Amino acid sequence: MKKVVAGIDIGGTNTDYGFVDAEGDILFRSHHKTHEFERFEDLAITLHAEMLKAAKDKNFDIVAVGIGAPNGNYYNGTIEYAPNLQWKGIIPVVEIFERIFNKPVFVTNDANAATLGEMLFGGAKGLKDFVYITLGTGVGSGIVVNGELVYGHDGFAGEVGHILVKEHGRLCGCGRHGCLETYSSVTGLIRSVNIYKRDFPGSALRRYDMADLNGKMIYEHALKGDKLALKAFDIAAKRLGIALANVVAITSPEVIFLFGGLAKAKEFIFAPVKKYMEENLLTVFRNKVKLLPSLLAGNEAAIKGAAALAWRELRKRGN
Amino acid sequence: MKKVVAGIDIGGTNTDYGFVDAEGDILFRSHHKTHEFERFEDLAITLHAEMLKAAKDKNFDIVAVGIGAPNGNYYNGTIEYAPNLQWKGIIPVVEIFERIFNKPVFVTNDANAATLGEMLFGGAKGLKDFVYITLGTGVGSGIVVNGELVYGHDGFAGEVGHILVKEHGRLCGCGRHGCLETYSSVTGLIRSVNIYKRDFPGSALRRYDMADLNGKMIYEHALKGDKLALKAFDIAAKRLGIALANVVAITSPEVIFLFGGLAKAKEFIFAPVKKYMEENLLTVFRNKVKLLPSLLAGNEAAIKGAAALAWRELRKRGN
Repeated sequence: MKKVVAGIDIGGTNTDYGFVDAEGDILFRSHHKTHEFERFEDLAITLHAEMLKAAKDKNFDIVAVGIGAPNGNYYNGTIEYAPNLQWKGIIPVVEIFERIFNKPVFVTNDANAATLGEMLFGGAKGLKDFVYITLGTGVGSGIVVNGELVYGHDGFAGEVGHILVKEHGRLCGCGRHGCLETYSSVTGLIRSVNIYKRDFPGSALRRYDMADLNGKMIYEHALKGDKLALKAFDIAAKRLGIALANVVAITSPEVIFLFGGLAKAKEFIFAPVKKYMEENLLTVFRNKVKLLPSLLAGNEAAIKGAAALAWRELRKRGN
Repeated sequence: MKKVVAGIDIGGTNTDYGFVDAEGDILFRSHHKTHEFERFEDLAITLHAEMLKAAKDKNFDIVAVGIGAPNGNYYNGTIEYAPNLQWKGIIPVVEIFERIFNKPVFVTNDANAATLGEMLFGGAKGLKDFVYITLGTGVGSGIVVNGELVYGHDGFAGEVGHILVKEHGRLCGCGRHGCLETYSSVTGLIRSVNIYKRDFPGSALRRYDMADLNGKMIYEHALKGDKLALKAFDIAAKRLGIALANVVAITSPEVIFLFGGLAKAKEFIFAPVKKYMEENLLTVFRNKVKLLPSLLAGNEAAIKGAAALAWRELRKRGN
């Protein structure tokens, strides 16, 4: 029987899961709408039944379960007050899954999981000090120092999305003003278009309601040279560059990986972010830090990341 | 013979050194003016001769040498382009000292050394995740994650003093604008007095030239309720609070230690910095992070820190 781990990515909309072998190949995958499950336990029971069947069909041995989820806490084995999930309060994820699966279960937040995926199966193989940034609806991150993920004393470290990049800046979902993710996420990009549209009377983006706009549309207009779209990308790149300069001052990584929707707009993100980061770096760090795209495919990173967590923990235990 | 390590703190003005035992007690100490030595090698030769004599007199066995110095690089064993030292370029510190002492030699920057001192011999015993901030002429820092000092991929991590805390802010010695240390160091405090003195016609501090001012004078005026002095401390506390909120978002430490001249003005630093930090913290981190004074005496921290580096490295090697 081939040994695999179950990688599960619990998101606000979808829960993706699959089997991943020790080389990082996804050998089976499926998904559910997260909202199907009133109780968290129902999710665990359904996934267990489906995985048992798939494992039997394919002759797989499930040796552990890794879970990535918003507000997932590695130390506590919990999901804690995740605003985008229907289950409120603190969910004892590891306890519930271990009871049902009877295998070792590990959880961390989605960005940390993706970071481990990059480290075990992607572009960060062999790197001891790197930073991984997810630029999606919000901004998530994972920080690796001395070859170990930085969880902090409470398991909640790595909130680069909530670095303050502008005093009295944009209101963030977290209740504060000026967080990075209000500028350098897909949501931030759309906000920039809305804020600056009066300054660009010639922009074709002005005909859309903010509610109808998405990152892809802004990207396509930027490709055509739309100045409002280019302005929105410039703001996103500038604030991210400043935030990354601060992250470098603290942890001095060898590489910073960018992943997620915004990072797909490569020509409007990588070179400009690098430029703004370099402008804001202390001399000793200049022209040293590489800014690279993630090597994991967008639709695979979450499952591979959750699985990477499990493989890594098993190896730590000497299995 | 009692085993000791030599702890050496090389500063722009003084070079302090001493013998420190495994419990962190300083058993002998002495010092030189750093400017006495034209060649770096002369410093090493002089210290070696004096230490050999002292060790013989007291029957000590010097098992290793630890050095803290500005721009000291742990990985390279060097001091690199330290602006405040008379030796320019890259100094191969470990190579020179090992040749002369014929013992294992370790170097890191002064703030990292002090951080290790706090960890081995001070208030950070047993802590796995903490941050150490030195508030002197500049702002230095050491970050400990998972029980290990964060050196970064190049040995230069931990430059919290150069986090950007204000866009288009004060010009820093590093050439950029808005670095933390332009606000929250003793130098920053004096700059604040000078910048705001026109707004406080009643302040007794106005009678001094900026060149004659020092931190102690501003502190004494603040104690008497001088509004200009209080304003300067408020600015220092506010910028430090914001910077620490960003550091917490990245590394989530259990404790932040404050050390150095500015930290001695306890009533104008600890409570205000805590207030500003809490105001700027993401909810998940609020009321969790302790802000504490260093437990090491100001005149002992540097030697103990340099010695802590050596003791720690020896233990890693299994000696």
